[in-house]
Amino acid sequence: MSQLPSCETLLLESQGGVLHVTLNRPESRNAMSLGMVEELRAVFKAVRDDRDVRALVLCGAGGHFCAGGDIKDMAGARARAQAEGADAYRDLNRAFGALLEEAQSAPQVVIAVLEGAVLGGGFGLACVSDVAIAHINAKFGLPETSLGIIPAQIAPFVVKRIGLTQTRRLALTAARFDGREAERLGLVHFAESDAQALAERLSDVLEQVRQCAPGANALTKALLLATDSQPLSPLLDHAAGLFAAAVVGAEGVEGTMAFVQKRAPQWAE
Amino acid sequence: MSQLPSCETLLLESQGGVLHVTLNRPESRNAMSLGMVEELRAVFKAVRDDRDVRALVLCGAGGHFCAGGDIKDMAGARARAQAEGADAYRDLNRAFGALLEEAQSAPQVVIAVLEGAVLGGGFGLACVSDVAIAHINAKFGLPETSLGIIPAQIAPFVVKRIGLTQTRRLALTAARFDGREAERLGLVHFAESDAQALAERLSDVLEQVRQCAPGANALTKALLLATDSQPLSPLLDHAAGLFAAAVVGAEGVEGTMAFVQKRAPQWAE
Amino acid sequence: MSQLPSCETLLLESQGGVLHVTLNRPESRNAMSLGMVEELRAVFKAVRDDRDVRALVLCGAGGHFCAGGDIKDMAGARARAQAEGADAYRDLNRAFGALLEEAQSAPQVVIAVLEGAVLGGGFGLACVSDVAIAHINAKFGLPETSLGIIPAQIAPFVVKRIGLTQTRRLALTAARFDGREAERLGLVHFAESDAQALAERLSDVLEQVRQCAPGANALTKALLLATDSQPLSPLLDHAAGLFAAAVVGAEGVEGTMAFVQKRAPQWAE
Repeated sequence: MSQLPSCETLLLESQGGVLHVTLNRPESRNAMSLGMVEELRAVFKAVRDDRDVRALVLCGAGGHFCAGGDIKDMAGARARAQAEGADAYRDLNRAFGALLEEAQSAPQVVIAVLEGAVLGGGFGLACVSDVAIAHINAKFGLPETSLGIIPAQIAPFVVKRIGLTQTRRLALTAARFDGREAERLGLVHFAESDAQALAERLSDVLEQVRQCAPGANALTKALLLATDSQPLSPLLDHAAGLFAAAVVGAEGVEGTMAFVQKRAPQWAE
Repeated sequence: MSQLPSCETLLLESQGGVLHVTLNRPESRNAMSLGMVEELRAVFKAVRDDRDVRALVLCGAGGHFCAGGDIKDMAGARARAQAEGADAYRDLNRAFGALLEEAQSAPQVVIAVLEGAVLGGGFGLACVSDVAIAHINAKFGLPETSLGIIPAQIAPFVVKRIGLTQTRRLALTAARFDGREAERLGLVHFAESDAQALAERLSDVLEQVRQCAPGANALTKALLLATDSQPLSPLLDHAAGLFAAAVVGAEGVEGTMAFVQKRAPQWAE
Repeated sequence: MSQLPSCETLLLESQGGVLHVTLNRPESRNAMSLGMVEELRAVFKAVRDDRDVRALVLCGAGGHFCAGGDIKDMAGARARAQAEGADAYRDLNRAFGALLEEAQSAPQVVIAVLEGAVLGGGFGLACVSDVAIAHINAKFGLPETSLGIIPAQIAPFVVKRIGLTQTRRLALTAARFDGREAERLGLVHFAESDAQALAERLSDVLEQVRQCAPGANALTKALLLATDSQPLSPLLDHAAGLFAAAVVGAEGVEGTMAFVQKRAPQWAE
């Protein structure tokens, strides 16, 4: 498996093809510091070309997922801003957006387990997961405009996640809502009522992921994301070429043989 | 506060930073006449640059929101059409679409309170609100093709509101449905069972809007709408610059200070 | 009515302006063979310019809608692939995508009645219907990546149908789900608990379609689909011209007169 970066704000644990990433600044409800942004980006980068890592599971230490941006970073940027101008804020903000872009396009299946505060930047990170599992008592919200600022990097990912109609209400009223409502809005896929149910749901999802060929999943995810920016017919032309390559590739041959032989394919053993 | 246009088809009432706009042609269930279209456009234009107007509330007089286009206007356009050709219909129709574009992009929070008939053009107007609150007995529908015509200006806003999948059924079957179903489809955010519950919900939403900084809300709304037409990475670059400006701007400074001082910011007082 | 192609894999029955198309390879749960793809394309093409065909109803023989691609075709393509290279797979795959594109843009109202297996290619075909009615016990899923291949032609239509958020989970976990869940996800419009309720729902929908003018419906459908690729303002300009033409056209005149005379329009008789 890939060499992982050494981290101060994250706990990393690899287990059976799954990389568990725990946001670990419980003293600040895992607020998204610049250090945490950089470490998360380094983790996604380290495993990007590693198909042995089948899934990443993101969660938070101490009962919260992530309460948003870090006030101290803002203070640091303010100090630098007095020297350098508003560029310090801009770069801080854009780095977080780069994390969201990179997490969104990770070839692995990204699973978010959401408890406690899922606010601002934490909300944005939840929006780029492939599967999101929330505790029913998790607290979701976009508080930015109630603080006089804006969900600049987050907003586009929220629109893509739950559509314009729901996003406009949430972003312009700073409304808070719980895990069940997050499920109703399509922000998360599952809402569970206790820690054991959360753990079992995660286990079920990981077992499903294990049934799916890692290369095929990576190609499929890239294709899904491409629908946003590419016109349909050329995308389908391109996809047909990918299909042909997949069928004659190692996974396609193994998958078809396993199906005919009524056995599990290699990747699911 | 801005000078408001004098109106024959609308009742206007300003109260505490909120402009209440009542469609007021109850004798025709507030059918969307060309006069009403022009007056609504004038109202949105008059307040566009006025951040003291924090929200617009749209509702209808006499128990209905809006029953759609006005038959008499159609007759008038028919008379002109005999002189001028089909251009008269085209211009009438396009003016309504311009209203929808302008209402969609209003910098204020636009709230629709939906009772009785919400049909055709009324349905379209509901689709550009930021928050929609319906009575459970409201009657929604796109009857156009059952009249041999088409929801020409409305259809694109409905697709943006509830997605292609639901829109195609509604537009091609002219199905009617109530407020609860409108909530289930994501057309409205809340469905309430009586007049008092409607009023309380509106009051709650306005109180939430009051917590949010008006300039930050206007920027955020523009950003949400831009996701539809702009590629992601350049949009995030642009948004980071907006973020930096917001942080060092008056609202950002006041919001951060209020947060640290555990008091309400100025705009929420 | 149009001359229909003679078919080996489909049953065709015209009745009162409705063309019922039954996928008829029950021995393989109506797996989507290349022959079936070509026959379906020929059917959509044959009726394309025929406004007397108001709706197409797609269903499957023997209790299943369609279990996906056909393994024998894959074997055939494999044989050809050894001679011709991977092009054989690519062409097979792309032909199915062309069917989806053509079915998506059919001017008629396309209704899918979904029972039993609705998997892979069958899932894709369900995603291009205007109205989808499922049995609550139908089995939906995208099993491709669990077979080492990818839902290449299908994925873009699924994203358009139910959005990226739900699609990414379904495609990357190969999860199976039933008709009620399909309704909750917005994949289908109705979930019914027995054969009689399915038949009644279909009958209700066809009666609604009969109320809608066929030309107006065809124009409206094209307009809805155009929102995906065309910027808003020019689309509204274009739509205003279509509106004007519709109003002065035969359907518009008949529809308005019927409304004033409180009678059913000709097309609904």
